[in-house]
Amino acid sequence: MPSVPKFTHLDAQGHAQMVDVSDKAVTVREARAEAIVRMLPSTLERLIAGDMPKGDVFAVARIAGICAAKRTHDLIPLCHALALSAVEVELAACANDAVRIRTRCKLNGRTGVEMEALTAASVAALTLYDMCKAVDRGMCIEHIRLIEKSGGASGHFLADDTDVAATLRPTT
Amino acid sequence: MPSVPKFTHLDAQGHAQMVDVSDKAVTVREARAEAIVRMLPSTLERLIAGDMPKGDVFAVARIAGICAAKRTHDLIPLCHALALSAVEVELAACANDAVRIRTRCKLNGRTGVEMEALTAASVAALTLYDMCKAVDRGMCIEHIRLIEKSGGASGHFLADDTDVAATLRPTT
Amino acid sequence: MPSVPKFTHLDAQGHAQMVDVSDKAVTVREARAEAIVRMLPSTLERLIAGDMPKGDVFAVARIAGICAAKRTHDLIPLCHALALSAVEVELAACANDAVRIRTRCKLNGRTGVEMEALTAASVAALTLYDMCKAVDRGMCIEHIRLIEKSGGASGHFLADDTDVAATLRPTT
Amino acid sequence: MPSVPKFTHLDAQGHAQMVDVSDKAVTVREARAEAIVRMLPSTLERLIAGDMPKGDVFAVARIAGICAAKRTHDLIPLCHALALSAVEVELAACANDAVRIRTRCKLNGRTGVEMEALTAASVAALTLYDMCKAVDRGMCIEHIRLIEKSGGASGHFLADDTDVAATLRPTT
Amino acid sequence: MPSVPKFTHLDAQGHAQMVDVSDKAVTVREARAEAIVRMLPSTLERLIAGDMPKGDVFAVARIAGICAAKRTHDLIPLCHALALSAVEVELAACANDAVRIRTRCKLNGRTGVEMEALTAASVAALTLYDMCKAVDRGMCIEHIRLIEKSGGASGHFLADDTDVAATLRPTT
Amino acid sequence: MPSVPKFTHLDAQGHAQMVDVSDKAVTVREARAEAIVRMLPSTLERLIAGDMPKGDVFAVARIAGICAAKRTHDLIPLCHALALSAVEVELAACANDAVRIRTRCKLNGRTGVEMEALTAASVAALTLYDMCKAVDRGMCIEHIRLIEKSGGASGHFLADDTDVAATLRPTT
Repeated sequence: MPSVPKFTHLDAQGHAQMVDVSDKAVTVREARAEAIVRMLPSTLERLIAGDMPKGDVFAVARIAGICAAKRTHDLIPLCHALALSAVEVELAACANDAVRIRTRCKLNGRTGVEMEALTAASVAALTLYDMCKAVDRGMCIEHIRLIEKSGGASGHFLADDTDVAATLRPTT
Repeated sequence: MPSVPKFTHLDAQGHAQMVDVSDKAVTVREARAEAIVRMLPSTLERLIAGDMPKGDVFAVARIAGICAAKRTHDLIPLCHALALSAVEVELAACANDAVRIRTRCKLNGRTGVEMEALTAASVAALTLYDMCKAVDRGMCIEHIRLIEKSGGASGHFLADDTDVAATLRPTT
Repeated sequence: MPSVPKFTHLDAQGHAQMVDVSDKAVTVREARAEAIVRMLPSTLERLIAGDMPKGDVFAVARIAGICAAKRTHDLIPLCHALALSAVEVELAACANDAVRIRTRCKLNGRTGVEMEALTAASVAALTLYDMCKAVDRGMCIEHIRLIEKSGGASGHFLADDTDVAATLRPTT
Repeated sequence: MPSVPKFTHLDAQGHAQMVDVSDKAVTVREARAEAIVRMLPSTLERLIAGDMPKGDVFAVARIAGICAAKRTHDLIPLCHALALSAVEVELAACANDAVRIRTRCKLNGRTGVEMEALTAASVAALTLYDMCKAVDRGMCIEHIRLIEKSGGASGHFLADDTDVAATLRPTT
Repeated sequence: MPSVPKFTHLDAQGHAQMVDVSDKAVTVREARAEAIVRMLPSTLERLIAGDMPKGDVFAVARIAGICAAKRTHDLIPLCHALALSAVEVELAACANDAVRIRTRCKLNGRTGVEMEALTAASVAALTLYDMCKAVDRGMCIEHIRLIEKSGGASGHFLADDTDVAATLRPTT
Repeated sequence: MPSVPKFTHLDAQGHAQMVDVSDKAVTVREARAEAIVRMLPSTLERLIAGDMPKGDVFAVARIAGICAAKRTHDLIPLCHALALSAVEVELAACANDAVRIRTRCKLNGRTGVEMEALTAASVAALTLYDMCKAVDRGMCIEHIRLIEKSGGASGHFLADDTDVAATLRPTT
């Protein structure tokens, strides 16, 4: 019978603790994550067509995502503080009613950076929501998930379907 | 022709700015938001059946959500700092492969608190992901959205479908 | 049978939540707290006699305490964010082997400020420890406690013995 | 003999403390501040002519300034935490070798907001420096100062010369 | 005559500064600290007997302690920022009127982590106070101290009496 | 024709991103920066002559500068988080109407620390302004600039004129 992975955030009595990473190797670790923000087609049109200065909402969301990546350990209680060597946040319109956010984080260190990539995607999405909510309160953030992860003992991870955006059915 | 709502985060030249709320009334404002975390049925089973101490992951996620609500203005660049009078975060299993997170924020103040409720839901979801990712890296955070909002000049908002969780198709 | 006070940080199912203070009155609230740092008599002598510039350690500890009071809600998960109207931190040598730290916080608002006063005292004490630990690693922080509290529905509180420092037995 | 203003951050023994503002009136308070960043004319040309996407550096600096205004009390030890009702940050090229940053903060509250306006200007300037330093390490931030202040007991303040930028001599 | 240790936070003129650790070796460093929270026996009974859900207060205090360890350098002015490799916080009832908090921090780095361990203990204690203060305002935090420290040039430190809790006299 | 330096904060489409420093060498990096605060001669006299306790304003400003250096990555969106090995902040009166602030930051790491040194100088200057503004609202912060930088691939930088303070013309 294959052994099942153990929850490593728990101590012997089941209490939540930070994992001890003292003995892990310092390697290059990288993670990519994604979020989709669904909105009314009319909202996306205004984003694209320039009812606001092109790129500005995207610029604020990008910066918010980058800053959030650096604060992940302040938000997620059991995450280790770490010194990311790179953070990227990209936003793009997809289908006729969605914006796709993709992030990438890198570290030379002892822990994976998937939470940093996911946090960057989430906060970029929340920022986009904040900047458009006056015209579309029903927006929904969907599919925040890990796309790829490399480095460290757990090996390479690649999501089964790396292009959720491509499968979005346009709102009609 | 009905006038369209304006993006209020922009100044005359289209640059992002914090909205001036000096002239808004101090009223009781409230918002409720939601997030769904999808996972393998086996992951949910372990969460429920006690492969880790019952409630502990939920306890950490709940605390992380509450703390995040208080830091919303530090994460979302154009949000106002404010002194929430209440924050609630609830987590519950739903279907056979999901956890539903519901949040509620209240304020006696000049601005709506939907971003605080959404941020609490997002960070609680990220924390849940962090605590279970060792056994299920493919988890996905879905349907982060506003459920209800009251107080302030923009009136009452209630999402069309307030029970997304009820419509989740079980994973087979 | 007298009713006992209830733990108000818990919801109906016993989960930790921030207390809803929406309906509490805005009044002037004030709290005073205290901490004692015990050390070797020789350490206190050096603090007093000027083996370091008089007042400098005290200055850093005072500032650290004031700054910590403002961050209480970031440290204590269920504390409300609030806008203190005043913070005071005083340090004084007492007996031949101790420093007494006293703090006072004020607020025009809906919640008591005892946690802010206690946090200021604790962090001032930790800072004093940090600045002297190279010469005295056995220092001990004692008697962090609330001295007085006023304002709000729970009435006036005054500690039974408001001068613990006076009862400290000198180290011989 | 006219009485001189007193330093209000000091207690009876001269120790630094936060001013007690409990008894100050809640009024609308506003402050405007300014910073000038001097650079090589060639650096400004590249900023303007689009060697980088027009507006992007400005967008990041603007956001950084807004976020910094909200954190002023975390940076300046004796500043009160407060809930700004508005923050504006504007950047513009001036002369042939400078960028002028102007900020405005508003509050319905008990304390002036000049430190918030000055902090926003400073951090926007530092951010601009950060984004251009790879091509011009000799840039200099000049003339961070208060332009105007209104509200509160100390009355209206207007800087003698409100247009330093106009007096900048072009670099030749 | 033996030379006395020097205060290393001071520059040549006695001004407080961060110690320069550039030349210190990167080694595994570890520290353990402790705090005792004294309360009414009836308060401890309610904590233990389940007048609130078993473990919940402890869960919140544990998380608060872990998060505080990561923020030590933000609270203690002269502490270096560092990336802890492990944080543990344990709480246990002792005698009939006290809770003992024990913490452990680890680092692969250039500075000791005793302040991190002490800060975790202090903030866990403050959080416990916060969650119980509605029923027992006279609680007192005692004996915050370093238990053990290893790694680095200053050698191994072990407190004389490593079990203060065992010597607590029960409240009668 | 010499090649011009490129703006390294931009991705292929010109969007702001954090520079990827994964491949940079870990070396000792150091930076020194400066700020000048101009004030009324009478303000400086009071600072020096002891109308407030000697050294206290300087002590608070020094601590604020040190703390700000540690938070640079939280303030400047595209700065990397890093673990400074040393921070120094010095303040001195110069001419008859100015205070000069000089800072020095060190790191064993992959990125330069000029933003940390500049941020420390800026926040120390803002703090000095805050503590004296009640008597002199027209103070001006001038000449925030990099003095020297070493370590890393970009080589050694030394400002042309390293003693601006010496050239200040006294106010008459």
